Amino acid sequence: MPTNRQLRLQARPKGLCAPGDFQLAETPVPELQDGQALAKVKYLSIDPTMRVWMAVDSYLPAVAIGEVMRAGGLAEIVESRHALFKKGDKIVGLTGLQEYVVIEGQSKLPFQKVPSIPFVSDTLFLGVLGMTGLTAYFGMTEIAKPEKGETLVVSAAAGATGSIAGQIGKINGCRVVGIAGSDDKCRWLTEDLGFDAAINYKHPDWKEKLAAATPQGIDIDFENVGGEIMHAVLDRMNLHGRVALCGLISGYTSENPALENFATIIVKRLRVQGFLVIDYSARFMDAATQLGKWKMFGKIKDRETMLEGLEKVPEAINMLFAGANTGKLIVKVA
Amino acid sequence: MPTNRQLRLQARPKGLCAPGDFQLAETPVPELQDGQALAKVKYLSIDPTMRVWMAVDSYLPAVAIGEVMRAGGLAEIVESRHALFKKGDKIVGLTGLQEYVVIEGQSKLPFQKVPSIPFVSDTLFLGVLGMTGLTAYFGMTEIAKPEKGETLVVSAAAGATGSIAGQIGKINGCRVVGIAGSDDKCRWLTEDLGFDAAINYKHPDWKEKLAAATPQGIDIDFENVGGEIMHAVLDRMNLHGRVALCGLISGYTSENPALENFATIIVKRLRVQGFLVIDYSARFMDAATQLGKWKMFGKIKDRETMLEGLEKVPEAINMLFAGANTGKLIVKVA
Repeated sequence: MPTNRQLRLQARPKGLCAPGDFQLAETPVPELQDGQALAKVKYLSIDPTMRVWMAVDSYLPAVAIGEVMRAGGLAEIVESRHALFKKGDKIVGLTGLQEYVVIEGQSKLPFQKVPSIPFVSDTLFLGVLGMTGLTAYFGMTEIAKPEKGETLVVSAAAGATGSIAGQIGKINGCRVVGIAGSDDKCRWLTEDLGFDAAINYKHPDWKEKLAAATPQGIDIDFENVGGEIMHAVLDRMNLHGRVALCGLISGYTSENPALENFATIIVKRLRVQGFLVIDYSARFMDAATQLGKWKMFGKIKDRETMLEGLEKVPEAINMLFAGANTGKLIVKVA
Repeated sequence: MPTNRQLRLQARPKGLCAPGDFQLAETPVPELQDGQALAKVKYLSIDPTMRVWMAVDSYLPAVAIGEVMRAGGLAEIVESRHALFKKGDKIVGLTGLQEYVVIEGQSKLPFQKVPSIPFVSDTLFLGVLGMTGLTAYFGMTEIAKPEKGETLVVSAAAGATGSIAGQIGKINGCRVVGIAGSDDKCRWLTEDLGFDAAINYKHPDWKEKLAAATPQGIDIDFENVGGEIMHAVLDRMNLHGRVALCGLISGYTSENPALENFATIIVKRLRVQGFLVIDYSARFMDAATQLGKWKMFGKIKDRETMLEGLEKVPEAINMLFAGANTGKLIVKVA
C-alpha cells in the first residue's frame, strides 16, 4: 500500500501559522475493509475558518493536537469496497490535510459525490459550487435579501466568498461596492466582475472614497472582515440596514478587534445576523445548481489562486491573512 | 406672567453629569399668541438616552450648547389660545427641562393629549404607558418575538424598560431571568414581578448563577447594558438566538466598552437587532391600550423612583448610571 502523508496539528497558532504548528507525518494507507473506500486527495480548499479550527472551539470543536488538520478537499476514489462509491468517482468533503482518506459508513456521510460535467473543472466544486460559493449564496439570499436599487458593500470582496456575494448582488439589481486590499483586486472587481465600484482600503483616503462610492448610503453590508473596515461601513449604513455577518477575518490571527461603533446598531436600527453555511446543507444541491447556471451563463465569474504540494498549506493559510490570494485559494496535492 | 425656570445645556459631559454641564436660567413666560397654549410641566421623565443627547449626534441631533435640555415630560395646559387644547388638558411629549412650555402648530405636534382615567396616576404616562413602557412593548413584540418556553434574559431588568420587557416575556410564557445591580432589585423582580430568577451582577459569582438560572441556555437577550454583561449573556446564547438591542448604558458615560466576543454572533448564528421606539409612533395608542390593560389586570406591575425639583435633574440623570433607581425615574417639578 502507498504511504499517506498528513499534516497534523502540533501546536495552536498565535498570530499567523508558524512552522512548528504542523507536523508532516507519514503513515501507511491501511488495508481496505468491506464497506470502505480509499480516496486520493487532489485539491485542498484553503479557507480563513481553518485558522479558527486550529485555535479554539467554535461552531466545530477545535482540532485536537496530534490530529490530522481539518480541511475541505476534493478527492478521487482509487479503490472501493463501499456500496456507494466506485473507482474514479470524485467526492468533496472534509478530507483533512492529507493525501489519502478512507471513507466508510453510509448515513450522514461527510462526503458528497461530484458529478462529471464537461468543461467544468474539479476545483469549481471547492469554489463557486463549494463551501465559499454556497456561503455567498445563502448569506445573500437568506440573510441579506437584496432588493433592486439597494446599495450593497462587500468586504474582502476579492476573496472566494466576497467575490461571489457581490456578483449575486449585481444579479439582484443592487449597486455593489467592494472593499479589497490592492488596486489589482479592485480592477478585477470592477472590470471583470461588474462591481460598480471597488475601494482599496490600503489607500489613506479610502473612507472618503467609500463615501463617494455610496452616495445613497449603504443598505446591506456583507461583512467578512470586522474591525476598522466594518466600523467604516457601519458609519455609512442607512436606517434599518442589515449586516450579513459572514466572517471577521481581521480578528482571526489576533485578539478580536473591538467594534468601537457597536452602538450604531441601535442608532440606525440595524439588523446584524450571523450565519454559517452548514445550516443550509439540505439545500446545497439546489443552490449549487443555481450557482452553476450563473457560472455557465457568465453571470458569475471566478478566479483561483493555486499552490502545489501538501507542505505548502501553512504558507497558503497565511496568504489569506496577508490578502495574497485573489478568488479561491487552493492547494493542489501532488 | 410667571417666570420660566429652565435647565440649559452649558457643556458636554465627560463621564457623569457635572454641576457645570447645566445652567439654571430664568426667563419670562411669553405673552400667548393666537394658536398657542401654555403648559406647566408637572413631571419629567429621566432616561439614559438623555446622556446621549447631551454628548453626541445620534438618532436625534445633540442638544445645542445654550439650548433648553431635551426631555420628555407631562404638563398641564394652564392657558390656551390653541384650537386643540383647553385649560386643564394634560399632555406628554418633549417638554424639555423647564417649568413651562409653549405649544403651537397643529400638524405633527410633538405632544399628545393624555386621557383622564380614574385611579390612573399621571406619571404612568411617562412610565408603563410612556416611552419606556412602549420601548419594552415594541422591543419584545417586534424584535424579540418571544415564544412559549423560550428563555429570555433582560439586563438592567429593574429599570423602567427592562422591568416591563421581562413581564411581557412572562405574559408570553417565557422563562425570564433578570440581571440587576442589587439584591433588593432582584427580590423585587422575582417576588413582585414574577421573574423566574434574578441575578445581582455585583456578586463575584454572578456568571455561574446566570448559568444555573438558564439551564436550557438563552434564546432571547433583551439588552440594555452592553459590555461585560452582554458578553456573559452572549456566552450562554443558544444557536439561532436573538438579541433585541435596546440600549448600551454601560457605554454612555465612558468610551463604549468593546464587545470582545462579537464573533459569537457568527458562531451561534445570532440575530442582533437595534430598535428605537420612535419608529413605531403610529402604533403608540394601540400599544398603550394593551399595556394599560395588562397594568389594570395586574399582569404588569411597576415602581417609580421620584425626586422633586427641576434642579435635581442632573443628580437624577447620574442616578441612572449608578443604578440608584428602581423602575421609572421621575422628577416632580415644583
